[in-house]
Formats: sequence, structure tokens, C-alpha cells
Amino acid sequence: MGNMASEHLSKAFDKELEKLKQHIYRMGGAAEAQFEAAIHCVGKRDSDRAPEVIVGDRQIDDFEATINAEAVRVLALRQPMANDLREVLAALKIASDLERIGDYAANIAKRSMALAQVPAVEPVRAVPRMGKLARGIIKDVLDAYIDQDVERALDAWRRDEELDDLYTALFRETLTYMMEDPRTITPCTHLLFIAKNIERIGDHATNIAETVHFQITGLAVGDDRPKGDTTSYEVVKPADKT
Amino acid sequence: MGNMASEHLSKAFDKELEKLKQHIYRMGGAAEAQFEAAIHCVGKRDSDRAPEVIVGDRQIDDFEATINAEAVRVLALRQPMANDLREVLAALKIASDLERIGDYAANIAKRSMALAQVPAVEPVRAVPRMGKLARGIIKDVLDAYIDQDVERALDAWRRDEELDDLYTALFRETLTYMMEDPRTITPCTHLLFIAKNIERIGDHATNIAETVHFQITGLAVGDDRPKGDTTSYEVVKPADKT
Repeated sequence: MGNMASEHLSKAFDKELEKLKQHIYRMGGAAEAQFEAAIHCVGKRDSDRAPEVIVGDRQIDDFEATINAEAVRVLALRQPMANDLREVLAALKIASDLERIGDYAANIAKRSMALAQVPAVEPVRAVPRMGKLARGIIKDVLDAYIDQDVERALDAWRRDEELDDLYTALFRETLTYMMEDPRTITPCTHLLFIAKNIERIGDHATNIAETVHFQITGLAVGDDRPKGDTTSYEVVKPADKT
Repeated sequence: MGNMASEHLSKAFDKELEKLKQHIYRMGGAAEAQFEAAIHCVGKRDSDRAPEVIVGDRQIDDFEATINAEAVRVLALRQPMANDLREVLAALKIASDLERIGDYAANIAKRSMALAQVPAVEPVRAVPRMGKLARGIIKDVLDAYIDQDVERALDAWRRDEELDDLYTALFRETLTYMMEDPRTITPCTHLLFIAKNIERIGDHATNIAETVHFQITGLAVGDDRPKGDTTSYEVVKPADKT
């Protein structure tokens, strides 16, 4: 480590890593809050709060920029190795996933404004349930990150499959619903994209779980769980209604 | 730079950076080819080739894993600074965007299989046009990366707006089409997601343009172009048809 070995520098470095971790945790809290507010806008048909969520996404973007700048500074100044290097790279990766979660939350808020302009559609009631599950996963991967808890990360990672199942059910139900009443096509289309956004938020949360796993163990999570939704292959025919 | 200053090590380092660049370029070529094949599957209703695209996504993932491992190794061993550090971080970021482009291409191929099971719908003819535009953007950002050409990167970045416009037009047309004939709801839903995937591929290509810009200039691209699609706010009413 050359001149890095002095205790003074090492302590300063520990502080920087700790600061990076705190930034991630705060960014995660902000992304979670944005997502919760977006789900509220959809579930309660309360699009008044939507503009706040849409504008609030800028704050998440700022968090990412700060974390990126800080991580690059630490890489350049401290030239960390092994565990320390993994810690800095994990922060970069997690910040990128949280930024995407923020984007999807803002998009859900935008679509709540379109939904509020037309009569409510029945399948929308599945959104709060999907939202609750996804939020639980986000919360757990963030806690796993802070506590460096591999088991918790893996447990959250596994629950994403449940979210995929909810999405598939909603996808089918919504297509059938549209076929029965084509006047619902606009709200149902937004609903499909909202559900897809939540499914993607779940994927980004599982990415974070994988990053935490890698950071702690140095190993990738095994490929034993098929990821993503299966609705891409789905054909729902009007006859399916009966 | 301490012991790094020796010419021997510096040459080895240059070779490593060059290798990283070549990996990115090959990965980009693979992602572009996957995307082209996926668009072919949709445009020509030739879902025979779809499984090949879906399986081929594994290769793109492997590229990303290789680039990540290589970049982390370079960071740890060479502890690069300033321009060199930016170059390694750019490779990491671009690999992540290309991986997402591969994912979207695979998803388009999956949906082409659902589309092939049902009669063709009219708005699908816009897909090859969107695909061609998006491919041009991907090709240009990759060339801009290899040639370190800021102007070319910015030019490609600007063309994403055109892609957003095509997406908005297709979104409206498809909703109207579904309303006129609810039997087309399943294919039209897949078509909407395919178009959204292409729009997202464009966003990832512009991310790459921004990374190239940052790598060369050290500055972020100005925020003067609104990004993303506006269809999230869209309400298409059956009355709009007339």
C-alpha cells in the first residue's frame, strides 16, 4: 500500500467509505419514498401528488451524481484494492440501480395522471399489492447492504419470483378486461406499463441483492432462479374469458 | 505513479486499455446484431430465428462479465488516474448499457413468437423503421467511442428525439387500432411493449453517447434536450378516431 499504510490516511479512507455507504442508504430511502408515493397516486387515484414525485426524481439523479463523483474520487485518491475496491464498485452499481428505480417511480406517477382522467378500471386494485411486495424487497436489500447480511439479501432476491407471478396474473387479467370493454383500452394500457415498471423495479432490487452478495462473498449468485417475466410469450384470446 | 512509471509497465497498461476497448467494440457489435435479428423476427413474422436471439443474449451477458472482471483487474493492478481512470469507468458503464440493449433485443424476439401466433396487425409496419433508426444510433455511438469522436456522439444523441417521436406516433396509432378491433388486443399489447423496448434501447444508446462525451471532455452533456417518451401522459379516447 506504500504511503497509504499510515494510520491517518487509512482512517480518512474508512471515513470516506462510510460516507459513501450513508449516501447509498439515503438515496435508497429517497427512492423507496418516491416509489411509495407513486403507488399511492395510482391506488388512491390521487394524481395531485404526482407532479411532486415527477419533480422529486431530480433529487435521486443528484444523489447518483454525488455518489459517482465521490466513488471516482476515492478510486483515484485511495486506489483501493480487494475488499475496499469491491465496496466502492458496489456503491457505483447500487446507485445506478436506485436511479433506475427512481425513474420507474416517476413514470408510474406520470401514468397516474393519465389514469385519473378516465374512469377507474378493476384490475388496478392489484397495483398496491404489487407495490407493497416490491417495497418490501427494496427495503430488505438496502438493510442487507447496510448490515452486510448475505442471507437477508438472498431472501429478498428469492421473493422477486412472487412479484413476477403477480405481474403475470395482472397482465392476463388486464388483457381480458380490455377485450370485454374496449373503452378501457387507454387506462388498461397505462396499467400494463405501470405493472411492468413495478416488475422492473423488482429486477433492479434483485440486482442490488446480487451486488451485496458479490461484495460480501466475492461470488456471483447462482443462476438457479429464472429471472424476469414470462408474459412476453403470452397470448390471451377473447375465448379465454369463458 | 511510483513503480508504475517504468515504460514496460506503462506499455502493458496501454495494451490492457486497448483490449478493454476492443471487448466493448465486439460486445457492441454483438448487441447490434442481436437487435437487428430481433427486428427481423418482428418485421418479417419470422419467429423461427427468435430462439437463437433469445439464447444469444447469454453471449452478451458473458461479454459484460468479462469486461467487468477485466476492468476490476485493471483498477486493482494499475490503479489508474485521471484520463485512464475515466477510460476504465467508461468501459464499465458502456458494458452495462450494452447488456441492457441485449436484454431488450431478447425481449423483442420473445414477443415476436407471440405475434407470430395471431394475425398480423397494421401498426407493426412502423417497427422496422424504428429499428433502423435505433440501430443507426447504436452504430454511431460505438464508432464515436472507438474513434473518440465527441461530435459524432452528440449527433447520435440528438437523433434519439426522432425515435421518441416515432414511438409516440406508434403508441397513439396502436391504441386507436385496438379500440377499432378489440380482437387485436393481444398482438397490439406486445407491439406496444416492443416499441417501448426500442425506445429504451435508444435511451441506452444515448447513455453511451453521454459516457463517451464525459470520457473525452470530462463534462456532462448539457440538459437541453428533454429525454424519454411523453406517452405516459397520453389519453387516447375512442372519439379521437374521427
